[in-house]
Amino acid sequence: MTDLSQTDRTRLRRTHERGAFDRATIDAILDVQPMCHVGYVMDGKPVVTPTFQWREGDHVYWHGSSASRGLRASKGAEVCLTVTILDGFVMARSGMHHSANFRSVMLFGQAFVVPDAQKEAKLSAFIDGLWPGRSAMLRPNSAQELKATTVLGMEIAEGSAKIRSGGPVDDDEDYALPIWAGVIPVRSLTDAPLPDPRNLPGVEMPDHIRSFRQDDQAR
Amino acid sequence: MTDLSQTDRTRLRRTHERGAFDRATIDAILDVQPMCHVGYVMDGKPVVTPTFQWREGDHVYWHGSSASRGLRASKGAEVCLTVTILDGFVMARSGMHHSANFRSVMLFGQAFVVPDAQKEAKLSAFIDGLWPGRSAMLRPNSAQELKATTVLGMEIAEGSAKIRSGGPVDDDEDYALPIWAGVIPVRSLTDAPLPDPRNLPGVEMPDHIRSFRQDDQAR
Ligand SMILES: Cc1cc2nc3c(=O)[nH]c(=O)nc-3n(C[C@H](O)[C@H](O)[C@H](O)COP(=O)(O)OP(=O)(O)OC[C@H]3O[C@@H](n4cnc5c(N)ncnc54)[C@H](O)[C@@H]3O)c2cc1C
Ligand SMILES: Cc1cc2nc3c(=O)[nH]c(=O)nc-3n(C[C@H](O)[C@H](O)[C@H](O)COP(=O)(O)OP(=O)(O)OC[C@H]3O[C@@H](n4cnc5c(N)ncnc54)[C@H](O)[C@@H]3O)c2cc1C
Ligand code: HEM
Ligand code: HEM
Repeated sequence: MTDLSQTDRTRLRRTHERGAFDRATIDAILDVQPMCHVGYVMDGKPVVTPTFQWREGDHVYWHGSSASRGLRASKGAEVCLTVTILDGFVMARSGMHHSANFRSVMLFGQAFVVPDAQKEAKLSAFIDGLWPGRSAMLRPNSAQELKATTVLGMEIAEGSAKIRSGGPVDDDEDYALPIWAGVIPVRSLTDAPLPDPRNLPGVEMPDHIRSFRQDDQAR
Repeated sequence: MTDLSQTDRTRLRRTHERGAFDRATIDAILDVQPMCHVGYVMDGKPVVTPTFQWREGDHVYWHGSSASRGLRASKGAEVCLTVTILDGFVMARSGMHHSANFRSVMLFGQAFVVPDAQKEAKLSAFIDGLWPGRSAMLRPNSAQELKATTVLGMEIAEGSAKIRSGGPVDDDEDYALPIWAGVIPVRSLTDAPLPDPRNLPGVEMPDHIRSFRQDDQAR
């Protein structure tokens, strides 16, 4: 695991002190937030699709229908995969110094198609990464389902993390003003799981469901 | 407020029954989730930047530094602005029928620069949309701050919403299997505001902070 080198594309011009290129920082964000937004170019124009990603070693993966317009356009093409966690609103004494606390990652590169022989293992890693042990408890995938599914991957080679944390930073003279400033923390949270009414009698909620937390803080 | 017509670009090919083109559905998603991801093309390659958006009537807006690489590349150019709310994980009896509950909007079009004369009003609408009445309580914006800030806008003219809700939909024969299925609800939440230690003595938390909820459910 080597840290990423800055490229012309990934050098942060704005608030660059918030940037990070080390894999520990990048991986921690990727591993805690499965949602991502994948950007690709279609007919010269940008498209941003919300989807799920998962990481295995030096790659991130995402999946969908083999007929998906977005996956087809992304194969072998340049994509930008962005993962974002909002941690809070930063309330300052002037408009301009309002901000947000966040952790985000932008990855750039070419997407490749995961070969058929590895597809099932990748999809199981996706499921088990979120819910350890679940893939083995499911009805096995059919050959037709696997054929209908495409898994794309991308090397974690060019990209950056950006992190803001802490309170507002106001202009010196504004601290004398009687204006409430501070942080409104935001986080995501899982509520109690809702069993499907068609679950068979006696089927208990497995540990991987009971202990699952989408809390953006750690997994 | 006219509903959007489907275009070739916005016709949902996958699970099209989840698509919606009426403005009430689209606006409700835009109004409840300030975070968005803006895609633009730079040197022929896609970039996806997390940022905040706000809506006024038939337009969405976003802002940043006048020197921002992303804002400069987006001016007068095609962008895709995507807003996403994750409502839950959908746990099925087979891998393939796992899914997510979500509400999302994709908007396409050309971004324009908000003229200087309207910039301050737009930024106040951004602040007051989240925290009613706050902009008037702040230290006034300086001319230099306004100059350093660019607000981009985009007409809500081409785009779509996509919504999934409800429990898993499994293959008929899989309902006979003793596998736990259901939904794990996810939502975002605000914790108690943290006052800046440098707030002046006697400055109370305003109502617009006390009653603020980033709960993704309604505002
Ligand atoms: C939180 C979240 C997680 C998701 N995870 C996955 C995943 O892991 N795998 C997966 O295959 N899909 C996932 N989706 C759905 C994904 O966003 C796409 O809808 C789906 O992949 C179909 O993509 P496509 O390129 O084939 O779209 P098409 O249906 O070909 O797109 C055509 C047009 O339909 C509209 N459209 C498509 N998707 C959306 C959308 N999400 N919101 C608004 N308009 C839309 C747009 O106008 C688009 O230009 C997820 C969505 C959300 C919100
Ligand atoms: C939840 C959230 C809300 C935000 N809201 C706003 C807003 O309202 N206004 C605003 O101006 N900015 C906002 N930002 C910051 C925004 O994402 C950009 O970092 C900022 O706008 C600078 O953009 P730029 O195009 O000038 O980037 P540059 O600094 O020129 O980008 C150069 C390179 O830096 C890296 N980089 C830049 N931004 C990020 C990032 N967020 N994550 C990882 N790598 C990055 C990328 O490699 C990029 O290619 C928000 C960020 C988050 C996560
Ligand atoms: C009058 C109102 C505002 C003005 C004039 C303004 C101006 C600016 C400017 C100039 C930047 C660029 C900073 C830089 O890149 O160096 C910026 C960034 C930003 N603004 Fe605002 N802003 C305003 C209100 C808000 C509000 C209300 C929020 C949200 C709560 C907000 C959130 C952000 C965020 C998250 C960034 C990115 C900071 C970063 O890159 O780390 N802004 N704003
Ligand atoms: C073996 C495992 C899996 C396979 C084979 C698989 C396959 C597929 C396929 C083929 C589609 C496209 C459906 C369509 O567009 O018609 C799809 C979409 C999707 N998948 Fe998966 N998937 C798997 C696991 C998961 C998991 C674990 C999740 C997350 C919990 C997930 C979330 C989604 C979502 C959200 C969509 C989009 C549905 C929509 O467009 O509304 N998938 N999957």
